Amino acid sequence: MPASLTLLTDFGSQDGYVAAMKGVLLARAPGAVLVDVSHEVPPQDVMAAAFVLRQAWPHFPAGTVHLAVVDPGVGTERHAIAARFGDHLVVGPDNGLFPLAFAPAIVGDVASAQPDEAVVLDDPSIWRTPTPSQTFHGRDVFAPAAAALAQGAPLAELGRPLDALRPLHWLQPQADAHGIQGWVLHLDRFGNALTNIPRALVEAHADGRAVKGYVGSTILQGIQSTYGAVAEGDPLLLYGSDDLLEVGVRGGSAASLLSLCKGMRVHLVYS
Amino acid sequence: MPASLTLLTDFGSQDGYVAAMKGVLLARAPGAVLVDVSHEVPPQDVMAAAFVLRQAWPHFPAGTVHLAVVDPGVGTERHAIAARFGDHLVVGPDNGLFPLAFAPAIVGDVASAQPDEAVVLDDPSIWRTPTPSQTFHGRDVFAPAAAALAQGAPLAELGRPLDALRPLHWLQPQADAHGIQGWVLHLDRFGNALTNIPRALVEAHADGRAVKGYVGSTILQGIQSTYGAVAEGDPLLLYGSDDLLEVGVRGGSAASLLSLCKGMRVHLVYS
Amino acid sequence: MPASLTLLTDFGSQDGYVAAMKGVLLARAPGAVLVDVSHEVPPQDVMAAAFVLRQAWPHFPAGTVHLAVVDPGVGTERHAIAARFGDHLVVGPDNGLFPLAFAPAIVGDVASAQPDEAVVLDDPSIWRTPTPSQTFHGRDVFAPAAAALAQGAPLAELGRPLDALRPLHWLQPQADAHGIQGWVLHLDRFGNALTNIPRALVEAHADGRAVKGYVGSTILQGIQSTYGAVAEGDPLLLYGSDDLLEVGVRGGSAASLLSLCKGMRVHLVYS
Repeated sequence: MPASLTLLTDFGSQDGYVAAMKGVLLARAPGAVLVDVSHEVPPQDVMAAAFVLRQAWPHFPAGTVHLAVVDPGVGTERHAIAARFGDHLVVGPDNGLFPLAFAPAIVGDVASAQPDEAVVLDDPSIWRTPTPSQTFHGRDVFAPAAAALAQGAPLAELGRPLDALRPLHWLQPQADAHGIQGWVLHLDRFGNALTNIPRALVEAHADGRAVKGYVGSTILQGIQSTYGAVAEGDPLLLYGSDDLLEVGVRGGSAASLLSLCKGMRVHLVYS
Repeated sequence: MPASLTLLTDFGSQDGYVAAMKGVLLARAPGAVLVDVSHEVPPQDVMAAAFVLRQAWPHFPAGTVHLAVVDPGVGTERHAIAARFGDHLVVGPDNGLFPLAFAPAIVGDVASAQPDEAVVLDDPSIWRTPTPSQTFHGRDVFAPAAAALAQGAPLAELGRPLDALRPLHWLQPQADAHGIQGWVLHLDRFGNALTNIPRALVEAHADGRAVKGYVGSTILQGIQSTYGAVAEGDPLLLYGSDDLLEVGVRGGSAASLLSLCKGMRVHLVYS
Repeated sequence: MPASLTLLTDFGSQDGYVAAMKGVLLARAPGAVLVDVSHEVPPQDVMAAAFVLRQAWPHFPAGTVHLAVVDPGVGTERHAIAARFGDHLVVGPDNGLFPLAFAPAIVGDVASAQPDEAVVLDDPSIWRTPTPSQTFHGRDVFAPAAAALAQGAPLAELGRPLDALRPLHWLQPQADAHGIQGWVLHLDRFGNALTNIPRALVEAHADGRAVKGYVGSTILQGIQSTYGAVAEGDPLLLYGSDDLLEVGVRGGSAASLLSLCKGMRVHLVYS
């Protein structure tokens, strides 16, 4: 069975950068099945990238290599790394993307997962060239390492061991007996606003009480299980596919209609 | 030969949703060749999606599975279905997308094709989980069904038989001895306006007469066979690759230059 | 080993046009590995397409077929061609795209490479249909030819020999003892402005002197080796991954912050 290899970057789809990486991957790991996760991550937005990878990686087969290059620190001292989380492999810069993407849940202090094994990619012999481009490690450092993993190279052979990955600063929702304060993490293409409030946190504090949501100037009554629970054009709270609370509008864009933006506060109040 | 499996959604390319579906597909149908048709269909625009699939499916090999998830009714009572049209298989919501996409021609009353065989995907044992996400059937219901078909599962094993798919309301062009009235169905990336007027209809009524087109405030003389027939910057009527009449501008965007939009009326008058 | 086949068009990702080509490719070259280079080339911008292909093709395995359809001349007298540059094969219109994409360097008069072998695709027996669409040669002429090459057909069997491809007019930077004048060729997604000034040209004329860059109303001191050499928000000159000089801003978009656009002049002055 050929290895699956996913790609996640902020390179966009106008240039030839992603294809250059794919060329390197196919030349070194012929037969690998390449799958784009996204190349439209907002430029240098590591948190958004982590969030996108979080949606996708759990559904890939064991042994998949996830190559994620959203790299505001390229050309500085940040580490280039490869790591293993369970039976998934990752390659990219050490900037917190993977610890957030692989965190089993976004609750309390467990949002930052550490890999089972990690190495620093500082061995020039696995690079595409001993003098990699200072601005394009995706092609010259990360793609060759990912290709080696897809070909079955043991992680330990790619570089020297690293104890821990750098965690990403991640806004935690704050909960007390009265309610929960969270934030809008991400607006998707449909204008739904995903928050950092997980279902488990809401349910742990609800204690049978009803809940109201406040976001911007909108008040939302209760949490619905489907869009069909409200009328066309009405806003609602519901859990998204990642079991995080989201704000939506049936048949419309919550982002536009409720003037939501990333980083906005969302309050839940029990009554 | 591995099965080809096409994907068509309105999920956009910023999020990880499409990749989540691809993960499910590759995990359950390893070796399937995944091809994106588009993920940039305007949100919830079933007709646009049908039109896009219409451009693409006839060129795929027999046995290809077409997974199309443009699903304004997700979470409501609409059926999740799989069906067979000739030697192509389809999976998605029963909202009229496939009957339009597979209609052999867009003339008179034959625009809405019915499949040779169809089933309702209501058997939880083929879903990814017995409690699928209310907002993401693409990953939890449709992708597992598509993967099963790509692996050779007989359609009849995926669910209970369904007599007919729901047709999509589809604007028919209206023709009489004097001319034809149609509509702009779609504006493509080049600003060409595709109409719902097929070549066969124009030719059936022409009877050797010349034709003039009226769209917005523009009058177009005759139907050309190539852009080269008019001067740079001039508008023209010609048949697009699907043999539907389209309005274009040589070396420019008809949508911008002639202020065209979707749904606009196009009149052809014989003289 | 299955052949790799890259696709580069200006078709965008909203329509089904690219998928129609992929259907033809997979039907005729089952098993070929399809890789998108880009479909977001600005409409009919042959030079931008050449530049994008230039970034990508060198990284693909020998024997890769590059299908590039940016074709303002479709429906006119321009040739449809297939050609071989070293161990890479190309298929597309004869409009200068390939001679620029495969030029070994962009210096002086060598920017326009000629292939080792070329043919005109004027044999209807290899087309998808003897009456190809006048507006969609990508699907009806180029994809079948590319599929034949991916299946191992000798180039010479696809059509009659052609002596030389049409070169693309390409702005050359102008250098003298005082400095170099070049142009912005391309703005990438990060807002970096790639110029037509190659490192070799700058170094050949520098003679140990320092250099200042002038672009719009911005003066840039020296050429840096990494973004880290300047403060956050400061502009800089550096060499991009293709060893062409580029104008960037650390942590920002040079295009927005310095009001750069394609075609803008860039002066380097030695001091």
